[in-house]
Amino acid sequence: MKNIVTIGGGTGSFTLLTGLKKYPVNISAVVSMADDGGSTGVLRDELGVLPPGDVRQCLVALSESSETLRELMNYRFEGGGLKGHSFGNLLLSALEKIKGNFAEGVEEAAKILDIKGEVIPVANKDVRLCVKLRNGEVLSGQSQMDHNEKVREIGIAEVFIKPRVSAYKKVLDRIKKADFIIIGPGDHYGSILPNLLVSGVGKSIKKSKAVVVYNCNLTNKKGQTDDFDLDCYVSEMEKFIGKGRIDFATYNIRRPNKRLLEKYEKREGKNSLVLLKKEKNNPGYRIIVADFLQNAKVVRKKGDAIFDTRSFIRHDSEKLARTLMKIIEPERY
Amino acid sequence: MKNIVTIGGGTGSFTLLTGLKKYPVNISAVVSMADDGGSTGVLRDELGVLPPGDVRQCLVALSESSETLRELMNYRFEGGGLKGHSFGNLLLSALEKIKGNFAEGVEEAAKILDIKGEVIPVANKDVRLCVKLRNGEVLSGQSQMDHNEKVREIGIAEVFIKPRVSAYKKVLDRIKKADFIIIGPGDHYGSILPNLLVSGVGKSIKKSKAVVVYNCNLTNKKGQTDDFDLDCYVSEMEKFIGKGRIDFATYNIRRPNKRLLEKYEKREGKNSLVLLKKEKNNPGYRIIVADFLQNAKVVRKKGDAIFDTRSFIRHDSEKLARTLMKIIEPERY
Repeated sequence: MKNIVTIGGGTGSFTLLTGLKKYPVNISAVVSMADDGGSTGVLRDELGVLPPGDVRQCLVALSESSETLRELMNYRFEGGGLKGHSFGNLLLSALEKIKGNFAEGVEEAAKILDIKGEVIPVANKDVRLCVKLRNGEVLSGQSQMDHNEKVREIGIAEVFIKPRVSAYKKVLDRIKKADFIIIGPGDHYGSILPNLLVSGVGKSIKKSKAVVVYNCNLTNKKGQTDDFDLDCYVSEMEKFIGKGRIDFATYNIRRPNKRLLEKYEKREGKNSLVLLKKEKNNPGYRIIVADFLQNAKVVRKKGDAIFDTRSFIRHDSEKLARTLMKIIEPERY
Repeated sequence: MKNIVTIGGGTGSFTLLTGLKKYPVNISAVVSMADDGGSTGVLRDELGVLPPGDVRQCLVALSESSETLRELMNYRFEGGGLKGHSFGNLLLSALEKIKGNFAEGVEEAAKILDIKGEVIPVANKDVRLCVKLRNGEVLSGQSQMDHNEKVREIGIAEVFIKPRVSAYKKVLDRIKKADFIIIGPGDHYGSILPNLLVSGVGKSIKKSKAVVVYNCNLTNKKGQTDDFDLDCYVSEMEKFIGKGRIDFATYNIRRPNKRLLEKYEKREGKNSLVLLKKEKNNPGYRIIVADFLQNAKVVRKKGDAIFDTRSFIRHDSEKLARTLMKIIEPERY
């Protein structure tokens, strides 16, 4: 079986791992540690733990345990002092306290959840993401990106982590042994870069013999990746892992429905869909163009009215995994 | 294998089940639902769930999963809005919310913890324990017993539950099929009676063909069971399950060390150890007199000073189980 290292965090990794899990591959999911919003943020502040939210999502994606146990991990309490906390975050925080460090707590959680493969935090130390705006102002905390209107108005110049930390040793080991390294999908500044900013990650990818696949996001974010096309994203990655290091980039060709697209354009600006800019010749990496769009689930409700229940433009886990497996084992898939 | 139903709640049941688990018997642990103090009380008030604390202890006792998972169940958060909550209580509360009722949540937790046998709440509905003092005043809530000084000063006349609820159907089924019913050890008013006060429990024990064993507590509580001897406890039980219904009663003969006894006498009054009153002839039940006292753990610390780490007069789980197995399978043990 091929050794696959995925790099991301949050919903993007959840989607990718949910799909990949069904294939015979060895998965090591490397997860960013920048999240500091919501339940995760409260736990970091109140208990001094490392951020459990993104790890939780990856564990659930790879879990082969009962539906109830997976539902439990995402269950959010609704009242009192527990309000807003997801049960899985509490599990990870309690295990971190019991085992004495986050990475070992994650390993225990992986056993409880009977996961396929492994989930590894990119760093096993407390680190915060800082956002430098185009006017020079620095905001502290990943959650600022989604909740501080300045980001949308002024725009991000760069992000960095504080303090500078080194990668958790297992991460570097898995990258070294990887046959394929799959970066993304995931929030560019919020999930992907916080992995590459950790010392040792970019360099070890550069040095590794693995084939590197980049799953380009479907949409851009206002103030963050305005007007980015596929090549912009790839160039950003290669700043960390070396020019020409990306072998494949996947790009979604299917347009979302008009209503959904209008909703995005209203919020994220005119070029909210990532463009391909086909005119560019010889980009140095192979572009895999396919339909990766999550299918709109059509649910028949009372009175036979049809509702489109999807409200996000997202990757479809099965479509994404199927295409990736064609890259990973072309003779078989 | 013999079908054993245990009736209790809290630490007493934990001790009993920890010992019994090691023998080849079918265990159904019936647990009282009266607890409303500490983490359990907060969860009842804030989330409207049924009390998880006693069930949690029984699940841990019967769990055959890893030491870490058992430790996790008892882990208490130390900061912020989660302060004082045990992780296991949160697990049970979340599962109750997901499954829609407490008893099914307990079944799911039992699967996660890989328990031997089963843990069954005596009732699957919200019920509160009320304490009537000897001056006629009524206090609401089991936690009043340990935290309201009036109980110690005035004394309990009786306890009752509000509203009157019926036993969870599985409880009656297991009692019907039981070969042995083991009542106690456990807090008399706080854990044991709250089981027998639930409609149907006493009557079904009365009618069952099971042998009934009563594990008498080691100590009395001031304002609650002052000067109770073994026969007083048995008579109290038989008010619910019928005169002469108890077949065996276990009684501890070994005295605790002087220092520990003095501590208890200072708090609980002169006759803090339950007396036997041997003079009584023909009590209608067989008294099994033995050493059931939890061994004082002697730990060598720095400088070779020896400390007695036990600060409670409690049953020893192994001694108790060994004696009970001699009653359950005399030809084998």
